[in-house]
Amino acid sequence: MASIFTKIINREIPAEIIAEDDNYIAFLDIMPLVRGHVLVVPKAEVNYIFDLEDDVLAGLHVFAKKVAKAIDKTIKCTRVGVTVIGLEVPHVHVHLVPLRTMDDINFTRPKLKLTQEELAEIGETIRKGLA
Amino acid sequence: MASIFTKIINREIPAEIIAEDDNYIAFLDIMPLVRGHVLVVPKAEVNYIFDLEDDVLAGLHVFAKKVAKAIDKTIKCTRVGVTVIGLEVPHVHVHLVPLRTMDDINFTRPKLKLTQEELAEIGETIRKGLA
Repeated sequence: MASIFTKIINREIPAEIIAEDDNYIAFLDIMPLVRGHVLVVPKAEVNYIFDLEDDVLAGLHVFAKKVAKAIDKTIKCTRVGVTVIGLEVPHVHVHLVPLRTMDDINFTRPKLKLTQEELAEIGETIRKGLA
Repeated sequence: MASIFTKIINREIPAEIIAEDDNYIAFLDIMPLVRGHVLVVPKAEVNYIFDLEDDVLAGLHVFAKKVAKAIDKTIKCTRVGVTVIGLEVPHVHVHLVPLRTMDDINFTRPKLKLTQEELAEIGETIRKGLA
């Protein structure tokens, strides 16, 4: 069965997409830790990040860097943190989290609840930061 | 001034080194979240991961994958999580954290205190998992 991220890639369910190429996609996490929390996902549906082929893994992080630079430019933060956990959705996803404190990237704390309008506005803001 | 990680690279201060090549080094975090928590560091002293050149960033994650595979083989865990925060030491470091629950990768919780002997034993164990 297709993962929720494959359904986003296939436009079967909506998402606030930030960037996309042939192999990767980035979109807003709908349960963000902070405003501007983005997921970066390889289109190939692989469960565990360290099962990605070296070139796919390398490309994923280079793609994530472009998105992180856009977040840095547009979202108030000290820097963008990176986390890959993968205990929930079985499709590799890199969290990019705009950080000000260590607690901003603590996945055990409650997530923000944002409206569609707020997500659309944040998406629009970050996309403007892409070169 | 050289970062604490550059001092480890230069063998000015000791560390339990897991793997090393011309560009990267991996060693045990001395304040681990869990047993088998490893730091992967580029030898070039750059503060922010997204300021690494694309090829250095890509190589860092491919190097980290080799180490993560060794952790997977030798340390009891569901998978190895990845975090880059970087609010403390101004030299890029990727945390590889053997995970069983989300809380295992929560950096706001107290760190383990392990003896030199315990660290040496964990280091020995993980090195055996390198192909």
